[in-house]
Amino acid sequence: MVNMSLEELRHFFEAEFPQASKDFLIEGHDGTDFVLRLPVDDRHLRPGGTVSGPTIFALADVAIYLAILSRIGPVALAVTTSASIDFLRKPEQGRDLLARVRLLKLGRVLAVADALVFSDGLEEPVARVSMTYSIPPAR
Amino acid sequence: MVNMSLEELRHFFEAEFPQASKDFLIEGHDGTDFVLRLPVDDRHLRPGGTVSGPTIFALADVAIYLAILSRIGPVALAVTTSASIDFLRKPEQGRDLLARVRLLKLGRVLAVADALVFSDGLEEPVARVSMTYSIPPAR
Amino acid sequence: MVNMSLEELRHFFEAEFPQASKDFLIEGHDGTDFVLRLPVDDRHLRPGGTVSGPTIFALADVAIYLAILSRIGPVALAVTTSASIDFLRKPEQGRDLLARVRLLKLGRVLAVADALVFSDGLEEPVARVSMTYSIPPAR
Amino acid sequence: MVNMSLEELRHFFEAEFPQASKDFLIEGHDGTDFVLRLPVDDRHLRPGGTVSGPTIFALADVAIYLAILSRIGPVALAVTTSASIDFLRKPEQGRDLLARVRLLKLGRVLAVADALVFSDGLEEPVARVSMTYSIPPAR
Repeated sequence: MVNMSLEELRHFFEAEFPQASKDFLIEGHDGTDFVLRLPVDDRHLRPGGTVSGPTIFALADVAIYLAILSRIGPVALAVTTSASIDFLRKPEQGRDLLARVRLLKLGRVLAVADALVFSDGLEEPVARVSMTYSIPPAR
Repeated sequence: MVNMSLEELRHFFEAEFPQASKDFLIEGHDGTDFVLRLPVDDRHLRPGGTVSGPTIFALADVAIYLAILSRIGPVALAVTTSASIDFLRKPEQGRDLLARVRLLKLGRVLAVADALVFSDGLEEPVARVSMTYSIPPAR
Repeated sequence: MVNMSLEELRHFFEAEFPQASKDFLIEGHDGTDFVLRLPVDDRHLRPGGTVSGPTIFALADVAIYLAILSRIGPVALAVTTSASIDFLRKPEQGRDLLARVRLLKLGRVLAVADALVFSDGLEEPVARVSMTYSIPPAR
Repeated sequence: MVNMSLEELRHFFEAEFPQASKDFLIEGHDGTDFVLRLPVDDRHLRPGGTVSGPTIFALADVAIYLAILSRIGPVALAVTTSASIDFLRKPEQGRDLLARVRLLKLGRVLAVADALVFSDGLEEPVARVSMTYSIPPAR
């Protein structure tokens, strides 16, 4: 099994997704989960100070993509084919968001993972997300 | 049942969501569906010229929110509680995206709808999205 | 594109799924949708006289499977890879259930469809279901 | 917070769902998760010896329902409002299925949980399921 180091993953992310890579910090595997951080700033906020749904979706999408790549190597063309998301609580204002990813299946053509999203430092999740990625054949 | 006119809906959208309302055009009900247009520009594109998943998610989210409000009146605090999305095809470059919404249930506390997203002028959908919104009690 | 006639589809269903085929009636395409009927009897009922969630799930699963096969030919090994379902209303007692399927994508390896489930004769759907099927390569 | 003992939960399950309670064994909380066992027998099998999708759906549905009730007390009328499921691998023949439930939110009107389903003794999950339950107001 291919494994990308944290350094390789960060270089790949910056080279292939220069814009998105400015928004997120790759924290890497913590033993159980793969962790991606979103330093929340004004661009992500809705009226009322809460982080928007599409921003939480984007955080989970990138986190799961990078978690898969950390295992299969740099496959820029892997694409999300489906996702389901439950919004559980309002994110706490003034705290970063963390997505914690579990890989559930790494198949030949499909990879499935889920993630819990937390306000940094709090125990109750803000959102639950699961996604399927399609892996291109020429891997 | 409360019904907001297209004019009322546009005013509400601009007043409550000044930023988002610049990104979308409310086309309104076409007899069957409620339609929202995303004039695609460079901000929405990923490397390769395709519209990003979170942008398609945001289009469907706003479209379903406005479709619900067009029926229950201006409830700014309705929030998405869950969503599922299937990405079916790459959006065609250089075309706007249209979300076409069907309301499936307008209950006391929950509203459920689904949407198909199309590249303008094409028949095969780019994405299928379903969402549940929680309606605040003081409606 | 391969197309199975209603007669071919029924024979295939009875030969490959002798048990399930006793529970369902294939009504076929009605111009827009592919329709499968569940003649409801006591086995499907929960306390209170309502049809159980897993029964509604099974109805949609079989309906979508047969709708796909009606287009790609008799592929017994197509399998459900993911599903999302919204339960919208209680089914009406004493009425059959109908699943009405729309095919959204027939790809090389994945097929995606959604279905609305109705109590026969009523206009408001009981459930909304979307599913992805994996198509085996040797097709 | 109300907590039902394992004994109370089993009595409630047998009294309210006499049929379903014969199919499942409540193992209870194992420290992290709430666990429900399905002793697999011929009724659950599809041609080829695999457990059917609707049976896995039913296992997760009952497991999540009981996990919620173990926390909020005997609310027979809680109903599933939505679910998403990913089928990851074929269950291994000749092994029971276990659903392991995590409660993610216990709100006033909605409860959200997810579950992983395993073939007993194996480490890789057979399915991932998330569900939302509506809690009746008179609780």
